[in-house]
Amino acid sequence: MNIEIVEMSPRDGLQNEKAVLSTEDKVELVGRAVRAGAKRIEVTSFVNPARVPQLADADALMAALPRHDGVRYAGLVINERGLDRALEGKVDEVDVVVVATDTFCGRNQGMTTEQACETAARLVAAARQAGKFTTVTIGASFGCPFEGEVSLDRLGEVLRRVHATGADEIALADTIGVAVPTDVTERLTLARDIVGGDTPLRLHLHDTRNTAVANAVAAVHSGVAVLDASIGGAGGCPFAPAATGNVATEDLAYLFARMGHATGIDLAETISAAVWLEERLGKKLPSALARAGAFPA
Amino acid sequence: MNIEIVEMSPRDGLQNEKAVLSTEDKVELVGRAVRAGAKRIEVTSFVNPARVPQLADADALMAALPRHDGVRYAGLVINERGLDRALEGKVDEVDVVVVATDTFCGRNQGMTTEQACETAARLVAAARQAGKFTTVTIGASFGCPFEGEVSLDRLGEVLRRVHATGADEIALADTIGVAVPTDVTERLTLARDIVGGDTPLRLHLHDTRNTAVANAVAAVHSGVAVLDASIGGAGGCPFAPAATGNVATEDLAYLFARMGHATGIDLAETISAAVWLEERLGKKLPSALARAGAFPA
Repeated sequence: MNIEIVEMSPRDGLQNEKAVLSTEDKVELVGRAVRAGAKRIEVTSFVNPARVPQLADADALMAALPRHDGVRYAGLVINERGLDRALEGKVDEVDVVVVATDTFCGRNQGMTTEQACETAARLVAAARQAGKFTTVTIGASFGCPFEGEVSLDRLGEVLRRVHATGADEIALADTIGVAVPTDVTERLTLARDIVGGDTPLRLHLHDTRNTAVANAVAAVHSGVAVLDASIGGAGGCPFAPAATGNVATEDLAYLFARMGHATGIDLAETISAAVWLEERLGKKLPSALARAGAFPA
Repeated sequence: MNIEIVEMSPRDGLQNEKAVLSTEDKVELVGRAVRAGAKRIEVTSFVNPARVPQLADADALMAALPRHDGVRYAGLVINERGLDRALEGKVDEVDVVVVATDTFCGRNQGMTTEQACETAARLVAAARQAGKFTTVTIGASFGCPFEGEVSLDRLGEVLRRVHATGADEIALADTIGVAVPTDVTERLTLARDIVGGDTPLRLHLHDTRNTAVANAVAAVHSGVAVLDASIGGAGGCPFAPAATGNVATEDLAYLFARMGHATGIDLAETISAAVWLEERLGKKLPSALARAGAFPA
């Protein structure tokens, strides 16, 4: 099975870092992701610059990014204002976020889960009308930093609402990195039962409790071949305490290459990008492969 | 399925650290492992103190360690001199190491793999005659830092020699942390085919390339329920470049608890031990759970 890794470093990777990268550096990061083989890149969020200052240059970034055949840029949106900016910036994909718990959804986007689902329905319809590929990402699909366990019933209810938006793809996000492989199997099975066979599923993993690589393997065993990852394992959520970064792109690239699944990602280029990003952020990132190097060397 | 975690921090966890812990601190570490629920603990190596100065106090440590009902202490040995010391120290288990490649075996213990297998046969026989439980651990079962890939044929040959020693248990070690889950499934299947159903198998994982948790899951799926781990994820091999620590005990404890497999390990006590060990070593350890905390909190 071929695996598609959606590169999250310019958005999820940067939104929680103390260092704010220049637009020029972000263009360089995206360029490095492209050179490493990424075909889908979430390049920014179109959210309130006062709330996520790291991504305040979203409009300027979209104007500055060179385009490449076969490479799609996605932008995250949570409301109409954001969608307008994303369309103006000519994103290829719109990623709409809904959080599965009311408390976290309130902190993340100032509305209840139900309100977020209603908003998502409007945003997906408008984005599709504008010819964009649409994803709805369900945050806290495996656990919430404020409410704790998220029941299967609750997730199922949200999945039904999200499926009804008509999104082209639905992502389950382990925003705070609590999932284990049995959770992944169970919740992807639930999602497949609810959305049927036509809507592709995608999994967004954080490596907070060292389970992300095992969870990626479980996803592939469940037939889900689209996985989010971030160069260097950078990132975290500004509205979720103790959240750490997405699983590192290079860690998944190593894993899947040795397991015989093609990802199209060049490991050496990705490690090089991770080392560059560490320099720009002025800190070590969680990436294992950037430390250890490939095997065989 | 119940999982047995063999605690490696006093031996594998300390042998490659710059800071040398006092015997008193080692007694404290073992005591903390016992309080956390460990039933088998590899407490030291009986090797040349000049080569592994971190464990030079092996004899004094064995004399100082209090004994607990139902807790077994293991000592690593690679030659007769070491076995004599281990027996004198009244270990409960003897762990004999053989490395699957000649280059690494030479660096680790000054002999070829064949010579190490012959030595292991003598050591296992003597240890069993002394009433000890014996393990042979096959180092570099998944890859070698000097020779690269280790073929299935090579591993099979070593497994046959090791099985012939009559050891009570055989461990495959991913000494430099290169394995992925498909390797684990393949090599544990090979091992089971060679040793038959009577000899328990055990897996020794390092988390160098972020695959150890996924590999632990693969082991359990293959029916192997004995896994080595180290509090805090401390450690590495002094004779293997870029090797990092064993997978953290608390990371496996979290994983298996949420997957519904009992380990007998108390997560809070293990995290507390990891934080204590970080203080004693004066450095952050790789443990994810010590950073993130349990979920639900």
